[in-house]
Amino acid sequence: MHWRIIVKFTAILALFLGLSMLGPLLVSLYYHDGGSRAFLFSILTTMGGGLITYLLARKTATPQLGHRDGVAIVSFGWILAGLFGTLPYLFSGTIPDFTDACFESLSGFTTTGASILTRIEGLPESILLWRSLTQWLGGMGIIVLSIAILPFLGVGGMQLYKAEIPSPIVDKLKPRISETAKTLWKVYTLITVIQIVLLAAGGMTLFDAVCHAFCTMPTGGFSTRNASVAAYDNAYFDTVLVVFMLLAGINFSLHYRLLKGEWRIFGNDPECRVFLGIVAALTLLVTMDIYGTVYDSLDKAFRYAVFQVSSIITTTGFATADYDQWPALSQITLLACMFLGAMAGSTGGGIKIMRIMLLARHSYQEIFRIIHPHAVTTVKIGGKAVPGDVLTSIWGFFILYVGLFLVGSLIMASLGLDLVSAFSSVAATLGNIGPGLALVGPVQNYAAIPLLGKWVLIVCMLLGRLEIYTVIVLLVPEYWRK
Amino acid sequence: MHWRIIVKFTAILALFLGLSMLGPLLVSLYYHDGGSRAFLFSILTTMGGGLITYLLARKTATPQLGHRDGVAIVSFGWILAGLFGTLPYLFSGTIPDFTDACFESLSGFTTTGASILTRIEGLPESILLWRSLTQWLGGMGIIVLSIAILPFLGVGGMQLYKAEIPSPIVDKLKPRISETAKTLWKVYTLITVIQIVLLAAGGMTLFDAVCHAFCTMPTGGFSTRNASVAAYDNAYFDTVLVVFMLLAGINFSLHYRLLKGEWRIFGNDPECRVFLGIVAALTLLVTMDIYGTVYDSLDKAFRYAVFQVSSIITTTGFATADYDQWPALSQITLLACMFLGAMAGSTGGGIKIMRIMLLARHSYQEIFRIIHPHAVTTVKIGGKAVPGDVLTSIWGFFILYVGLFLVGSLIMASLGLDLVSAFSSVAATLGNIGPGLALVGPVQNYAAIPLLGKWVLIVCMLLGRLEIYTVIVLLVPEYWRK
Repeated sequence: MHWRIIVKFTAILALFLGLSMLGPLLVSLYYHDGGSRAFLFSILTTMGGGLITYLLARKTATPQLGHRDGVAIVSFGWILAGLFGTLPYLFSGTIPDFTDACFESLSGFTTTGASILTRIEGLPESILLWRSLTQWLGGMGIIVLSIAILPFLGVGGMQLYKAEIPSPIVDKLKPRISETAKTLWKVYTLITVIQIVLLAAGGMTLFDAVCHAFCTMPTGGFSTRNASVAAYDNAYFDTVLVVFMLLAGINFSLHYRLLKGEWRIFGNDPECRVFLGIVAALTLLVTMDIYGTVYDSLDKAFRYAVFQVSSIITTTGFATADYDQWPALSQITLLACMFLGAMAGSTGGGIKIMRIMLLARHSYQEIFRIIHPHAVTTVKIGGKAVPGDVLTSIWGFFILYVGLFLVGSLIMASLGLDLVSAFSSVAATLGNIGPGLALVGPVQNYAAIPLLGKWVLIVCMLLGRLEIYTVIVLLVPEYWRK
Repeated sequence: MHWRIIVKFTAILALFLGLSMLGPLLVSLYYHDGGSRAFLFSILTTMGGGLITYLLARKTATPQLGHRDGVAIVSFGWILAGLFGTLPYLFSGTIPDFTDACFESLSGFTTTGASILTRIEGLPESILLWRSLTQWLGGMGIIVLSIAILPFLGVGGMQLYKAEIPSPIVDKLKPRISETAKTLWKVYTLITVIQIVLLAAGGMTLFDAVCHAFCTMPTGGFSTRNASVAAYDNAYFDTVLVVFMLLAGINFSLHYRLLKGEWRIFGNDPECRVFLGIVAALTLLVTMDIYGTVYDSLDKAFRYAVFQVSSIITTTGFATADYDQWPALSQITLLACMFLGAMAGSTGGGIKIMRIMLLARHSYQEIFRIIHPHAVTTVKIGGKAVPGDVLTSIWGFFILYVGLFLVGSLIMASLGLDLVSAFSSVAATLGNIGPGLALVGPVQNYAAIPLLGKWVLIVCMLLGRLEIYTVIVLLVPEYWRK
């Protein structure tokens, strides 16, 4: 473990975080929303802390970083961002409680979108922007994490993406990350800007357009409205959001390749085909279920179905309808979406389509082993055999995911939540979706969750966002041994 | 595929099944319950059909049977038993509907214990005995299946038990099975007899004692009372049933070894230790949850908790309390028990403790791989390394189990069931428990389930009971290819 390097990295992170708070500060000055003092103090604290730490650790030479250092940088980086992110809420008094502020801040940086705020529309513009910005920054982190860092660490089968562009060989952590990050961030920013333009062109105020775009690309799901996207009830906005939520659910390497001229890449990529196919199939299923029972027109049923399926499977969490009132078939479908998640390498959470595909193919393979016990079989994807260690990692990930879901639900139930609220609050935070069902449904929020429950859900958000292993490894004594 | 042999085996099965109906026939004559005609016709049909088929197929020499033959014998055998088992219900008019009769009969032979009967206490004694007998016979089948056949077929990791006693080397299907079966059936019968004596000694009528013992050892859960075991509200009966449910949840090889003088075998066996440990821990959890909230005395809370945890985790399904009214923590615990199941090699259903142990150890192992990426690691149980193909089989099994649970729940919800009823009806049939929650809770039954839903649940019972692969393999075209 190279502690000084880890400290240096987190110090740099704090400096950047402080810089990013300048945005809300400017917005606050523009709107005279009374938040400027809070942001000024937040910037001073964050950058001051970052600067002092950086100066103390700066002289450290950068050695070859190991797996353990990578894990520590990622986990502590996210936790630290979450902690500094609470400052604007605390200083402005918009969220005076520390637990609540941590919940909102980590829900932002983990791009979950679960909120403890009960009255969003009365908040200062600067705070609203900060909420959205935490998600957008969290999304930037996730892209680099999932495409450049996790493949190197071999977490949850992400080593499958070691050979992915834009950096052809990622076998050393340090040198490639900054290149990869810069390329991907350009793509990420470009798509965000296009979305802002499209939303504003449809008549959304520029401020709301920025905030919603900042929460779409990271599949975050915070909104500037209490009723989420339902407040607009606008088919154009719904369409734009569906398209960009799905784009956010696609591996960002594919976007890069699309921009490089590979026009058919979405159709050629096996995971992308399955992802879009699942979205289409589940949209059809939900449309059929809610048409006639909840909505009288097929048109409306389809519009709400495609929005909600896209929103939940990409783990964004925007809502245009109170799906908590939909029939059980739609509810189970959406619950299943919470577990499925979007593509690996996207900003989406959940188990992710690639893993589901490999798990399904593996169990199908096992059927053949019963028929031909001595045949040598391999699990393939896109015609290429998947290495055994990738499958092993994915199985481990899946089991831990299911296990944590169960343990989390038990704890939530022990705190007095009913069955569906307990299950769905854990599913919605572990999968980084945001809204769940019942007590934490789309027209509810997480304010009523007991104190301990909020911390359990904060841990779930972090576990889910950092692909479980990256966090859980810190709890193993072996990790801390020299 | 050796179709003539498969037919011959099923013919023999029908003959035995017809013979077993003599028991209820005698009971019917003794009680003058009006069921004797129905059983006479059932015997004639079953044995007649069996005899004709046997005579037609009898001249077939027995070749070396392959995996595919084994699968066909097991699956068709169970389905056939289920079909012949409907005859007494249909002929007596106690269950006039064919779907309902199939549900009740297959719920018996798969030792599930889910019932469509709304008024059990008014039924003829012979029919009550037949219900119990189907479970007891189903249990006999399961022991042989799980200890002698599945290890050979390599289904769901059961190859781990290839080297288990009483038959040290089971690498050829035919010769060892009958020896193994006879030994295990002796143990099974012995324990059943002891339980009958103990129940009768406590004041239960001999008839009820026989029926309840017949439903305990196969972890079946049919009762002669509408209210299940709650009708007695007797601490002695509860104690006897808890002990024998737990015995039924233990690998029958261990019982055999215990009888051979290995007194400490339960404590020495790693799976058994974990199984009993889980029962103790979950009993404690549920006791704490229901004490003070549902029951005023700790004594009562413990008694109902230990009964319900033992009943559900062993997948028996007897009820002494309406746990559908318990707090969410207890409900989630019991739902988790439905998935956990008892030990492999027992008559219990569910995923089973051995698989859970290996899955858990594997995912723990993966944490170490992140810390030491190049270390070679193996999953061990009881100090011995578990072969890779066993783990592969178990992963496949687990994924299919979760997948089928999800698909089944979606179908049940599409038929109009609420969320909890949809989930729990599938969990309770796939795991061969019997009662679930809400609409199919312990004081409810499956009568209100729509027609299609009953067939879905029948398929779930079969899939769960035959370890999924044995049934699902029949749906793959490759299986039918020459």
